[in-house]
Amino acid sequence: MRIVVALGGNALSERGEALSGEAQRATIRKAAKSLVMLLEADHEVVITHGNGPQVGYLAMQGGAFPLDVLGAETEGMIGYVLQQELDNAYTPDAKFATLLTQIEVDPDDPAFQSPTKFVGPVYSEKDAARLSADRGWSIGKDGEYFRRTVPSPRPKRILEIDVIRLLVGQGVVVICAGGGGIPVVHRADGTMIGIEAVIDKDHASGLLARDLGADAYLMLTDVEGVFENWGTPNQSLVTKTTPQDLQRMSFPAGSMGPKVQAACEFVTATGGFAAIGALGDAADLIAGTAGTRINADW
Amino acid sequence: MRIVVALGGNALSERGEALSGEAQRATIRKAAKSLVMLLEADHEVVITHGNGPQVGYLAMQGGAFPLDVLGAETEGMIGYVLQQELDNAYTPDAKFATLLTQIEVDPDDPAFQSPTKFVGPVYSEKDAARLSADRGWSIGKDGEYFRRTVPSPRPKRILEIDVIRLLVGQGVVVICAGGGGIPVVHRADGTMIGIEAVIDKDHASGLLARDLGADAYLMLTDVEGVFENWGTPNQSLVTKTTPQDLQRMSFPAGSMGPKVQAACEFVTATGGFAAIGALGDAADLIAGTAGTRINADW
Repeated sequence: MRIVVALGGNALSERGEALSGEAQRATIRKAAKSLVMLLEADHEVVITHGNGPQVGYLAMQGGAFPLDVLGAETEGMIGYVLQQELDNAYTPDAKFATLLTQIEVDPDDPAFQSPTKFVGPVYSEKDAARLSADRGWSIGKDGEYFRRTVPSPRPKRILEIDVIRLLVGQGVVVICAGGGGIPVVHRADGTMIGIEAVIDKDHASGLLARDLGADAYLMLTDVEGVFENWGTPNQSLVTKTTPQDLQRMSFPAGSMGPKVQAACEFVTATGGFAAIGALGDAADLIAGTAGTRINADW
Repeated sequence: MRIVVALGGNALSERGEALSGEAQRATIRKAAKSLVMLLEADHEVVITHGNGPQVGYLAMQGGAFPLDVLGAETEGMIGYVLQQELDNAYTPDAKFATLLTQIEVDPDDPAFQSPTKFVGPVYSEKDAARLSADRGWSIGKDGEYFRRTVPSPRPKRILEIDVIRLLVGQGVVVICAGGGGIPVVHRADGTMIGIEAVIDKDHASGLLARDLGADAYLMLTDVEGVFENWGTPNQSLVTKTTPQDLQRMSFPAGSMGPKVQAACEFVTATGGFAAIGALGDAADLIAGTAGTRINADW
């Protein structure tokens, strides 16, 4: 089976823990252990990952580089450790490649008018106001705190898709589209240029899964799956569902919403299946014995 | 012709200028214009690049990540912009791939006992002493200033060489081994792990050129070529030379020394030619009309 697996940014760094080389490696190692089960079952695996905590950390450190370059940095800092830990966890001889990935977005995407994607740490109202004034950041309210918000346009085209397809076809385990890919736009003169945005990783990975004709699209995160009535006494895990059924439910815009939407788009477009679940459950999600499985029909 | 081109870190950021997204892009754009002439002549081109200023910048910003991870970050931040500017400068349809690259070094390499590679900005003696105390950095004297020094072990094996070879064979323009590659060592249990070091980019690129059976190995930097009696009234550009002749001259350890050594090793091992010269002279270096050309014999 050809499987695209998207690792959640939150699943790659402990919530509330300061980012460091050691902490990042420890959480990535856990992810690698789960993914290795897919390699051992001889699936063709293409891996993407989030970068929310990391891109926030880099943006905090200095304002000298724009978000597209910071995104490229996180593809390096996360992709490298992920490849190394996967290679270490998987004993047979295998080829791995971590590829920088640019994804074209539409400069007229309405997202550029209303930045909604949270990046980086939470701030008090006062600190947020100061950062907004000093750095020109958009600020949004996340629960009771404040965070930086950036535009999150829809992914249109993966520039490196031919290279990714070539590598996958040759049996290489590819890590790509980290952080949702580096957002770029076409200019009037025909050239491409990076833009200040963060593409949603689940939508970017969904586009990748469709482009590669994947049989399955897995989204691994820090919760067990999709829940109905989340946060209420009636919350219950949705185990088997369809795009039609999911469209009747509602989900938080920032986290589960894009996952559900990306899953539905993939399943509807391809007839393959999608699954959403916990980082450690990759193999069980494929087997259908954990998390939320989305089929076109049952 | 199959050509490996190494871009000097100093050639990718103006000396003395503060690092920023805009400044980095402007200098990389100049490099891309020079490289495009090689693509237009239908050569197979594999590109590597330095990262001295960038890795120094990242190391200054925070101590939370070790040098291997910072190296991976610079492969992202430089490789992305380089790929984009190359793609913009080269009109025909071409495939580009920027690949994270790990290079194995020997944990018993004597370099770990005596860090000699300068990274990052220059400091006064007082600031250097404080940084040494605060961060455990080794400090060395660079001219009249002080800089951080890190171990620079010899590259032994490029972990992604099969993938690079595969891509080059399929006509993909590959950017890889940025910053000399991410240094990793083999542990007793058979796994690999990153290590605090910076591999010399010219040696790493030379290994790559030998592994790929390149016909030519170009090192582009911010000087015109190799000079005899550099810095004296008698200095003269060496235009045509051989490894034997070069071994009779002496060069500064930090900058021209490794280039000359890497050139000699490549020429001696393969019978191909090496050339050292200015960033803008890529095509003339191949033609033999600029810079320093090193042949096995003439």
